[in-house]
Amino acid sequence: MGCKNCCSICLQCLFGYETNVMLVINNKGVGALFRLIQFLIIAYVRAYQDTDSVISSVSTKVKGNILTNTSIEGVHVWDVPEYVIPPQGEKSFFVLTNVIPTPGQTQSKCPEIPSLVTKCESDSDCIEGQTEVHGNGVQTGHCVQYSDTIKTCEVQAWCPLENDTIIPKPALLGAAEHFTVLIKNNIQYPKFNFRKRNLLHHINSTYLKNCTFDRKTDPHCPIFRLGHMVTEAGEDFSVMALKGGIIGIFIDWNCDLDFPERFCIPKYSFSRLDNKNPENNVAPGYNFRFAKYYKNNKSIETRTLIKAFGIRFDVIVFGMAGKFNIVPTIVNLGAALACLSLVTAICDWVMLTCMKDHDQYVREEHDQIINQFGTSVTRLANHPN
Amino acid sequence: MGCKNCCSICLQCLFGYETNVMLVINNKGVGALFRLIQFLIIAYVRAYQDTDSVISSVSTKVKGNILTNTSIEGVHVWDVPEYVIPPQGEKSFFVLTNVIPTPGQTQSKCPEIPSLVTKCESDSDCIEGQTEVHGNGVQTGHCVQYSDTIKTCEVQAWCPLENDTIIPKPALLGAAEHFTVLIKNNIQYPKFNFRKRNLLHHINSTYLKNCTFDRKTDPHCPIFRLGHMVTEAGEDFSVMALKGGIIGIFIDWNCDLDFPERFCIPKYSFSRLDNKNPENNVAPGYNFRFAKYYKNNKSIETRTLIKAFGIRFDVIVFGMAGKFNIVPTIVNLGAALACLSLVTAICDWVMLTCMKDHDQYVREEHDQIINQFGTSVTRLANHPN
Amino acid sequence: MGCKNCCSICLQCLFGYETNVMLVINNKGVGALFRLIQFLIIAYVRAYQDTDSVISSVSTKVKGNILTNTSIEGVHVWDVPEYVIPPQGEKSFFVLTNVIPTPGQTQSKCPEIPSLVTKCESDSDCIEGQTEVHGNGVQTGHCVQYSDTIKTCEVQAWCPLENDTIIPKPALLGAAEHFTVLIKNNIQYPKFNFRKRNLLHHINSTYLKNCTFDRKTDPHCPIFRLGHMVTEAGEDFSVMALKGGIIGIFIDWNCDLDFPERFCIPKYSFSRLDNKNPENNVAPGYNFRFAKYYKNNKSIETRTLIKAFGIRFDVIVFGMAGKFNIVPTIVNLGAALACLSLVTAICDWVMLTCMKDHDQYVREEHDQIINQFGTSVTRLANHPN
Repeated sequence: MGCKNCCSICLQCLFGYETNVMLVINNKGVGALFRLIQFLIIAYVRAYQDTDSVISSVSTKVKGNILTNTSIEGVHVWDVPEYVIPPQGEKSFFVLTNVIPTPGQTQSKCPEIPSLVTKCESDSDCIEGQTEVHGNGVQTGHCVQYSDTIKTCEVQAWCPLENDTIIPKPALLGAAEHFTVLIKNNIQYPKFNFRKRNLLHHINSTYLKNCTFDRKTDPHCPIFRLGHMVTEAGEDFSVMALKGGIIGIFIDWNCDLDFPERFCIPKYSFSRLDNKNPENNVAPGYNFRFAKYYKNNKSIETRTLIKAFGIRFDVIVFGMAGKFNIVPTIVNLGAALACLSLVTAICDWVMLTCMKDHDQYVREEHDQIINQFGTSVTRLANHPN
Repeated sequence: MGCKNCCSICLQCLFGYETNVMLVINNKGVGALFRLIQFLIIAYVRAYQDTDSVISSVSTKVKGNILTNTSIEGVHVWDVPEYVIPPQGEKSFFVLTNVIPTPGQTQSKCPEIPSLVTKCESDSDCIEGQTEVHGNGVQTGHCVQYSDTIKTCEVQAWCPLENDTIIPKPALLGAAEHFTVLIKNNIQYPKFNFRKRNLLHHINSTYLKNCTFDRKTDPHCPIFRLGHMVTEAGEDFSVMALKGGIIGIFIDWNCDLDFPERFCIPKYSFSRLDNKNPENNVAPGYNFRFAKYYKNNKSIETRTLIKAFGIRFDVIVFGMAGKFNIVPTIVNLGAALACLSLVTAICDWVMLTCMKDHDQYVREEHDQIINQFGTSVTRLANHPN
Repeated sequence: MGCKNCCSICLQCLFGYETNVMLVINNKGVGALFRLIQFLIIAYVRAYQDTDSVISSVSTKVKGNILTNTSIEGVHVWDVPEYVIPPQGEKSFFVLTNVIPTPGQTQSKCPEIPSLVTKCESDSDCIEGQTEVHGNGVQTGHCVQYSDTIKTCEVQAWCPLENDTIIPKPALLGAAEHFTVLIKNNIQYPKFNFRKRNLLHHINSTYLKNCTFDRKTDPHCPIFRLGHMVTEAGEDFSVMALKGGIIGIFIDWNCDLDFPERFCIPKYSFSRLDNKNPENNVAPGYNFRFAKYYKNNKSIETRTLIKAFGIRFDVIVFGMAGKFNIVPTIVNLGAALACLSLVTAICDWVMLTCMKDHDQYVREEHDQIINQFGTSVTRLANHPN
């Protein structure tokens, strides 16, 4: 009997369920407020999606040739293997726009470029083995003639030293603004097993041979004129070409994968990433030095040092995909429900403090004590046991 | 006294708490439905973890040698510094599989490669200074003999021009499929102060010297045969070697850090990232041009241009780690609780609409109006004041 | 009339709202517990922000010169274009610290470096066309003298072969620890349209010319001494310089954008990313081989092979920004509310099980059955219909 009793309690515990006793109140003003707040909450809480970050692969290919005619190099045609560094076509590529070449450098000794710290009167001003942070070599301890009037400390270095005080103006390869770059971008959202590329389905080979990107007429053409990108970033190519800089090519793949796949298309935008503001401008622009090494006739290692100014283009792919998933839906739904209960409290407060006919409210409330599904609690209360 | 009254109101406000008046209903069908839905909700809402994205560092090292015998270069052994570009062993590395070399180029003038736009009859067909998008140099304005029968516009360029119409078949370095690459990958989840590498603890030096990755026998060996990866990506190495392509090496570090650290192991997968579909195939495969620069006997700058076809391997590390955290737990718990209240509503609706003995339900409901903890409201209601 | 009735039902449905019937219980102990748990929940659930991941662009510039004096190369000054690979100043840059040069290599035949597998007695021990995984070329099938006492298989390769058994000690370019690197980092949080760089507003040009990063005195100076970074990572530069390694330069941009922009500043940290633990140490440290190509006097392609040991610095930018947003606020608020309802249940349980005066509680409960806003349910129950 004890067990039977115990079992019945267990069953009651397991299969009984609780429901709240509720009041339904009829007041049009408060009721309207109640529905309005409910609507606002449900309208805001829509973030019912599971999300995933984009995984991306980029390859780039620049096209274009430039002819230059300088006193040092003479007539020279620059092609892609010469002005795109590195040549592999990765997602970050550098296009040469201005150069300061220093041909014929060998390991030897020569006077430093004159500056406040390198000028000297006698050997005692130079310290053997000393390396200046902004110097070009290691001092030998001698003070030698740099020109007829100036003496500087001698350095062991790749001589003759580069003199980069005068930057060619206009930029030697300023015509690079007419170059084009084809950007191939494959993305995937692994969580949703979704893959796509920026060469969209409707783009055919004929179109691609002739198109260049234009926000209005060709928004899906993956071939970009360098000058156009720089202009869209709000910069002047001819100015930027002088000292170089960094341009970001942003590809935004934010997609709602509950919609058909064809609505998931890349959006391109461009902006300058380095600082052109001259306030605290250390090393403005973008440049680096590289060298081509030779053996000269006497088998001595010789190099042509090139100070390369140019524009680095960084292709930056970003995006989040969202797709319906039961878990975040429950989380958001639950949160919304909980908020809705707050609405009841707000409405009660409005009712009790703002309404003039407070007494009538209490009286009406009594008359309609019904539970959630219309069963009158008052009827229950008066029911004979 | 006013203060005392005020204080007691405050205390009542602070230490009083509210509890709902509830009905417990005993109906096995509805009760079972109620418990079932509750169980489903709790089973789904388990995303109680705080998450962090992986931070990763990769280095790679390719090994292997190939002997080729061509008419232009003769017998040549290719080693890593020659066919891996760039040589540094970064997370994206390119392995040469096919080459079109053009030795002995110098800055000079020569006839363009014949095409629809470069063929000409007389000088008037060529415009001085013109650069064709797909051309190799800058036109001089002259129309010259390309061969006995064909005349093309002369260009200032690196001459002789490359003729890439015939791609070596089979691929010159097709044997690259036997090369191996060691991938060293260190990851961390900074939020959880968790670090790990893909050289797992139980892997010793002897094993690593001889193993190669195999999904079944050696799933944790970080040394991969190039051919094996391409096969796993569903491609044929000898076909892909002809024109090149991009293979993604995915390392998935998704981990549940509530489990012991040894369960957090990388999962490798491979897939082709570029498009081999020839529909809208601009620049199919993957190739780029680079040059080796020399000074010839007369100290004139000469270069060997190399059109390099090959496979770029992109190591793509991704993953999210989850770990118990009180905040998302509360968020999810709260949401689940709110959802549970919805269950009550569903059960009430089932009860009132579907049950045949509706009247009896109302009667029973009355008999058991008890609050959440068993105190009978009816008893309360009949209690003399 | 039917319609009027119908309409009134609709209106009642639309503008009626439900409110729970509630008990307020006065018990200081349980009340205090109730308020305490409520407070704890609200204190924990503060993650009311929308978040975005950082998008970053990095450029780096190394400065410094080193003089070395070796038997092979003589006196040689190393400058940035020689020891920084690649030279472009990307976010991952390699600084040479030790080299094994092998000058004058040409395509020819020579004996392999002696090892267990390459030593031989006669031609029959060598297989023509065979490539050893750790070998340097392709075997010709001949067994030749390596030294007076040792015979090894002959290989077709870039000869003479590199002998990397002896690593220069101390490291040839160990003085690289005094080099400095300027790191320029621009970040953005696209969702919040927020941009910033690591050259903070208050840093001027004069300061930047002289500062180097120091966690205490110059925490915002973006110029780092290589040796300082390695020390902060817990390593010894002179040891690490021997065989190389990878150092991570972490820039943490975690920001709360509800605070003013000036509080969003980068935090730098450094740690070694590769493994120095010698347990299962395949290819310890970090090295790679590259070559400089020449044509010798007889126009034969010659190269200087360089086995480069050094430190790769990976700049890793990470961070999340948070900003107030109504959606996550509602989600968290809702969840907190739902949790608060759990508190009621806990307090009820405490009340009913732990309190001594259980009977009195039930009696008191009856006396104070009031709804949430003070309307007594008992009064309602006794009200004449």
